[in-house]
Amino acid sequence: MVGSGVEVNATMSSNGSLAIGKSMERLRVANGESFDPMAVVTEPVPPVADSNGHDAEKGREIVLGKNVHTTCLEVTEPDADDESTGDKEAYMASVLARYRKTLVERTKYHLGYPYNLDFDYGALAQLQHFSINNLGDPFIESNYGVHSRQFEVGVLDWFARLWEIEKNDYWGYITNCGTEGNLHGILVGREVFPDGILYASKESHYSVFKAARMYRMECVKVATLVTGEIDCTDFKRKLLPNKDKPAIINVNIGTTVKGAVDDLDLVIQTLEECGYSHDRFYIHCDGALFGLMMPFVKKAPKVSFKKPIGSVSVSGHKFVGCPMPCGVQLTRLQHINALSSNVEYLASRDATIMGSRNGHAPIFLWYTLNRKGYKGFQKEVQKCLRNAHYLKDRLREAGISAMLNELSSTVVFERPRDEEFVRRWQLACEGNMAHVVVMPSVTVEKLDFFLNEIIQGRSIWYKDGNVHPPCLAADIGSNNCSCALHK
Amino acid sequence: MVGSGVEVNATMSSNGSLAIGKSMERLRVANGESFDPMAVVTEPVPPVADSNGHDAEKGREIVLGKNVHTTCLEVTEPDADDESTGDKEAYMASVLARYRKTLVERTKYHLGYPYNLDFDYGALAQLQHFSINNLGDPFIESNYGVHSRQFEVGVLDWFARLWEIEKNDYWGYITNCGTEGNLHGILVGREVFPDGILYASKESHYSVFKAARMYRMECVKVATLVTGEIDCTDFKRKLLPNKDKPAIINVNIGTTVKGAVDDLDLVIQTLEECGYSHDRFYIHCDGALFGLMMPFVKKAPKVSFKKPIGSVSVSGHKFVGCPMPCGVQLTRLQHINALSSNVEYLASRDATIMGSRNGHAPIFLWYTLNRKGYKGFQKEVQKCLRNAHYLKDRLREAGISAMLNELSSTVVFERPRDEEFVRRWQLACEGNMAHVVVMPSVTVEKLDFFLNEIIQGRSIWYKDGNVHPPCLAADIGSNNCSCALHK
Repeated sequence: MVGSGVEVNATMSSNGSLAIGKSMERLRVANGESFDPMAVVTEPVPPVADSNGHDAEKGREIVLGKNVHTTCLEVTEPDADDESTGDKEAYMASVLARYRKTLVERTKYHLGYPYNLDFDYGALAQLQHFSINNLGDPFIESNYGVHSRQFEVGVLDWFARLWEIEKNDYWGYITNCGTEGNLHGILVGREVFPDGILYASKESHYSVFKAARMYRMECVKVATLVTGEIDCTDFKRKLLPNKDKPAIINVNIGTTVKGAVDDLDLVIQTLEECGYSHDRFYIHCDGALFGLMMPFVKKAPKVSFKKPIGSVSVSGHKFVGCPMPCGVQLTRLQHINALSSNVEYLASRDATIMGSRNGHAPIFLWYTLNRKGYKGFQKEVQKCLRNAHYLKDRLREAGISAMLNELSSTVVFERPRDEEFVRRWQLACEGNMAHVVVMPSVTVEKLDFFLNEIIQGRSIWYKDGNVHPPCLAADIGSNNCSCALHK
Repeated sequence: MVGSGVEVNATMSSNGSLAIGKSMERLRVANGESFDPMAVVTEPVPPVADSNGHDAEKGREIVLGKNVHTTCLEVTEPDADDESTGDKEAYMASVLARYRKTLVERTKYHLGYPYNLDFDYGALAQLQHFSINNLGDPFIESNYGVHSRQFEVGVLDWFARLWEIEKNDYWGYITNCGTEGNLHGILVGREVFPDGILYASKESHYSVFKAARMYRMECVKVATLVTGEIDCTDFKRKLLPNKDKPAIINVNIGTTVKGAVDDLDLVIQTLEECGYSHDRFYIHCDGALFGLMMPFVKKAPKVSFKKPIGSVSVSGHKFVGCPMPCGVQLTRLQHINALSSNVEYLASRDATIMGSRNGHAPIFLWYTLNRKGYKGFQKEVQKCLRNAHYLKDRLREAGISAMLNELSSTVVFERPRDEEFVRRWQLACEGNMAHVVVMPSVTVEKLDFFLNEIIQGRSIWYKDGNVHPPCLAADIGSNNCSCALHK
């Protein structure tokens, strides 16, 4: 009986046409229940939804940027003879080839985001055939055997050494992005202090405020200095009336827009001055970009678990460089037991934000860390800081408002007037500011190319003297502003 | 001045040794501030943390499974002469080759998790050189140009058609995994009904209860039938005393352990019977695995946005198959505006859980959907259901307790007594139950191989008659139990 069900397989037409099944007898299986595994819907291709006369683009309000729906690559049903003609394969190959060309072009002109686009993972291409998944806890093997925990833990140990915490004292995992690190760090903080108030400077990454909303936490925004650093005078002002509640603090090791590094030591000192003992606050360090750069810079405030911090996160696709976003999240082992629960199904522990976890990312990171080592990263940090200074100085020489924080490779400058120029160089903008994040993939040649274009652009945008470059004094300080008033 | 800083680069020793900088003059830059980008720490390699005499494995309590720390692949600092000797490259190549061999082996013996391991993305290997990131909203292009939104929206449209919602009425995105879909769906529900109570059957995925905890939502667990489906009698009992508050319901389109499909229509009917109008409940359908299978099965309750549901999620690495975990999340556009906020920095909108988003996953999905089409998936669904029946029947014939839900390809059976056997076949277990999820990559040959091994194993485990196979009547019903009492 059952055999017949299986044999049917062989008689199915190979193009998947669905006349089959019609004449099939219902399969009556051993335990008496009736079930026909062949009983599929007769028309698997769903109808295109009736638009009820709606205009095709009406209804979807576009808030910002460009609407992707108009340019999307539709998935189409294969024709019955596609396998013999090869039309479909040819079509897809042509789409991919065109797309690859766009990627080359877009990568070439990219300056705005802190992504190191310079990597070669050719040796790892062989692993793309496997569904690698580190579901559950990195330190506890699950029943799913196709994982890369041995690489993941190697990478975590490397960061633990960088941030000065013993192997037996930390817990961590490789996340999908910087946001996941922040979501995790703040969640750990909340679990440690369920009634804690979240403090974060207003220039913190948007994921910090998203976390507060998701987790239903009271959140207090703290003012910033013109550099973008947290203003500890204001922090004190905000702490004092809330002294009865524990504090959970997000400290930025490089803000998103200005690359400002909050002074961790001053934050701790402020907490102490306000009467917070070390068991009444939790500090999460959002080191998205600079968490990996700061340890190599001499005068940077050290991010270290020897100080009273709870967690540190850093992105893996930024300074390290990785085809897909990823990040590293480290916290103290003592905190994680409160958060986690055992999941028998996985034979692992659920202490991460996500469940299934990308097993390729740890291998990419492991590969790069092994090749470069701490010394290699230090060299790249030097190069980035040097090139960032080069860019800032050249901009200032050309009469363009620009700022570079001392510990940063993020050059903030006057937003180019032409949106096409912004798009071409993929500049992230906020108000009158744009920025370039000088990453290892950004060479002096690329910067020169960019500088020539912006100088040339400005000579056109501002040629008739009717419009003037914007004043950036409020954004980056009058000493960095080259507007008509401040230059 | 600045030029000198840049030239220094060329004089740096190529092996990254850091004697440099010592004799460097501080760079005095144009605007008068002093800064030395070369001032790095003299010893970039952090010391190995002092273990203070702790035992190396003490302190890390291992809750379940195996401790990975003992087998991890340490990241080591390159030697100064590595580039000339090639030793490091050779070491890494050997690690990767060994690892690849393990993956082949582990993939071969995999049966327990619902991952389709049968895919060929060779045509996409060329894209691994790019840092593809769909940060922000799929429908609104951000300033970062190296993205794959055109593929992502194509994939979303395909699913919108499958789940019967118009292009202009839905919003969605490609997630990192099933958990992210559940986190998103439940968050949307909570934002729509801030004081809503979350209802979920106790056999729901652990991420549903994690969401409740993260989001500080009141959560009511509902009992299940022996099949694993939600017990709507109990659901009604739980709803009635809470009628003053809106309901947010997680409906399982395939539970994790038993592959049970909650009866969506009965859930809606129960809500209506309890007096809930359609504007007082929000249904999230967790279609992790079966969300893509059910539409092709004739007698399955249809998952459709024509019914009063709020969101549907499905995993991409399960039935479709993908090297890394991913998923698809769809909701009604009207709901998303409440959740989202604009992020000027991105020139996009923040309505997703994560910020940076893997841009490769959409291309993998797009590629497979295009190649297989709705018809191809239907064929695979048929094959899986047929093979699942084959497995269940063979197990029962061999006197092994086993259950297969009608709409499912998850065969639940007696947990093998030998943990080594469980690990070898990577079976997910809970209590006395183990399961095999029959995916497109699971052939009859593989099942026969497995069946022979388990039958042989049992003849050893239970040969002396001192121990007996466990009774599974409570888990899967006495009619499916083959224990001494029920056979």
